[in-house]
Amino acid sequence: MAPLFGFEVLHRDSGSRARRGVIHTAHGNVATPVFMPVGTAGAVKAMPGEFLEELDARIILANTYHLYLRPGHERIERLGGLHEFMSWNGAILTDSGGYQVFSHRELRSIREEGVQFRSHIDGSSNFFTPESVIDIQRALGPDIAMVFDDCTPYPSGYVDAEASMERSMRWAVKCRDQWRKTEDGSRGLFGIVQGGVYPELRKRSVEALLDLDFSGLAIGGLSVGEPKDLMHETVDATAPLLPWDRPRYLMGVGTPGDLIRSVAMGIDMFDCVLPTRNARNGCLFTSQGRLLIKNSIYAEDQDPPDPNCSCRICKKYSRAYLRHLFLSGEHLSAVYNTLHNLTFYLDMMRKIRDAIELDNFGKLYEQVEKGSG
Amino acid sequence: MAPLFGFEVLHRDSGSRARRGVIHTAHGNVATPVFMPVGTAGAVKAMPGEFLEELDARIILANTYHLYLRPGHERIERLGGLHEFMSWNGAILTDSGGYQVFSHRELRSIREEGVQFRSHIDGSSNFFTPESVIDIQRALGPDIAMVFDDCTPYPSGYVDAEASMERSMRWAVKCRDQWRKTEDGSRGLFGIVQGGVYPELRKRSVEALLDLDFSGLAIGGLSVGEPKDLMHETVDATAPLLPWDRPRYLMGVGTPGDLIRSVAMGIDMFDCVLPTRNARNGCLFTSQGRLLIKNSIYAEDQDPPDPNCSCRICKKYSRAYLRHLFLSGEHLSAVYNTLHNLTFYLDMMRKIRDAIELDNFGKLYEQVEKGSG
Repeated sequence: MAPLFGFEVLHRDSGSRARRGVIHTAHGNVATPVFMPVGTAGAVKAMPGEFLEELDARIILANTYHLYLRPGHERIERLGGLHEFMSWNGAILTDSGGYQVFSHRELRSIREEGVQFRSHIDGSSNFFTPESVIDIQRALGPDIAMVFDDCTPYPSGYVDAEASMERSMRWAVKCRDQWRKTEDGSRGLFGIVQGGVYPELRKRSVEALLDLDFSGLAIGGLSVGEPKDLMHETVDATAPLLPWDRPRYLMGVGTPGDLIRSVAMGIDMFDCVLPTRNARNGCLFTSQGRLLIKNSIYAEDQDPPDPNCSCRICKKYSRAYLRHLFLSGEHLSAVYNTLHNLTFYLDMMRKIRDAIELDNFGKLYEQVEKGSG
Repeated sequence: MAPLFGFEVLHRDSGSRARRGVIHTAHGNVATPVFMPVGTAGAVKAMPGEFLEELDARIILANTYHLYLRPGHERIERLGGLHEFMSWNGAILTDSGGYQVFSHRELRSIREEGVQFRSHIDGSSNFFTPESVIDIQRALGPDIAMVFDDCTPYPSGYVDAEASMERSMRWAVKCRDQWRKTEDGSRGLFGIVQGGVYPELRKRSVEALLDLDFSGLAIGGLSVGEPKDLMHETVDATAPLLPWDRPRYLMGVGTPGDLIRSVAMGIDMFDCVLPTRNARNGCLFTSQGRLLIKNSIYAEDQDPPDPNCSCRICKKYSRAYLRHLFLSGEHLSAVYNTLHNLTFYLDMMRKIRDAIELDNFGKLYEQVEKGSG
């Protein structure tokens, strides 16, 4: 039998709410706080699997919406599940598709039973219900599944945000019930807190989820266009309400600065397309801040992207060469930039974990805040 | 002082004109027969440098035309030359740009002094002369440079092919003279045989080049649209005329079958975009022939692309997954397919070299002929 899914807090920072922990999964232990590279279509974009393993990424995120549409969850199930399909032995978290479905506003309609939406690939009509999304994720076979939620857009008035949050909470019950029909405890199901930027609604959402005994709780509906301050305020107000003995996951966030600030507020898990998407757009994260590789000042710059980085790219290639690859439209530009950016993110998370353990987190916080905002 | 450029024939096959040799360069020895992966813009497309080293590729080709236009040969020279720029410690051969300039027929005009052409990037007007092309290559700093030639199109009548060949021969003299002004023998300059599909013209071209004492000779102007048989006949008629103690390079060729046939005719060096370009188009070379990965028959095929291949991709990924990556437009599709195809080509050349050494070439020839046409 597969080991039970679980979470332990190993150490708490003395100067903040930061925690150092470990998530136990059937595909290995994941040290937290953790950043999960985004593997939308069953592949972290432009990141060869070998390099991802070398970086010691222990968990990645895959998108239920994309995999449902292509190649199809039933096909992936027949091929042995997502781990086998993509040849990835680490842990996998699948999102519920809520964010994707709701972000195509013109392509969907919401009902109490679920959401009708059109495929961005072929325009075909599809219907997600809380139950079907659980079934799809079960077919994919992740280590952590997410409930199907109604992702409240920004801006939303209080009444709309309340109605949306309440729908998410009703759906959370359905998801939990559907999940319990088959699961044996080797995988985790996370609930998602909604409520827009209204602390009162967030609080009510957390209370509703606490009753449902999820393996972890996520803060959803942020990083959807709201001002940065409002995002941080919402995390700051919501995180302390979450049970301390379960992983806390801030969805879709963010910059290096966002990550360390959120860790200080007690968040354990993150995912974001920023390091991978920015890489493809030629934006490199470095210890000195962001570097736009196409800038002409780098045309004959023989320094590595980040002199303080130990990744394969910084050991081998110059800014001048990476600029040339970007301007020439080479596939390798995306590959090299992605490898660097993910190294930067995962190294930063490693430093954060080490700092929490050594009660040195406050100092690191200041450094990162200064460097990469 | 850098070691002298040189070539040795180590062993000759008893049943054909195939030779096993070694090219000595300032960036290492290159075992022949050799296939040179094409690194057009200073990068083998979609092939991370680490993987290329792991494959034991000892020499790659880079395109003078492309690097002249972007980032510019003077910039590369200021950055320490092409090896330093692209962080490649193996040998490099640069073509002369002749093929590229002549293949944009609507963008160029030929004069005795050289060729006026428009950049495919920004439409700017440029002029290549035999002398300037040598200077450009000197700035790039390859281990092997090529003379600037008038690449005769197919079809060409005898008179046109003759005039074109004779121009190439006059240019070859100019290139040789320009080269000798600075070179110390650590790098090689190769002449290029032209003459279309006319054995008589090819013979005269070889004779003209023999007088010029090049480090090696190439057969150019093939794989430009002529029927396959005519290509093989031309190689078969031309190769024996080339000096046996210099490397013989068949430019721009070809399929696995073309390569082994040409080795049997005495060719030592090859380059071709086929393995890399086909990879990006989802065409995989395998021991059972070509495999078009997008075909629906592979949708749930859990076999590796080629069960007889030992590359990272065949050890790790299924046809079903590679098909999914291709259909999803993932950068990784190009990366993984390229790694496989280059492994196939380089492994085949390794087998060819081993077979020649062991007097077993005839048997391998039959196998490859049967397998991959």
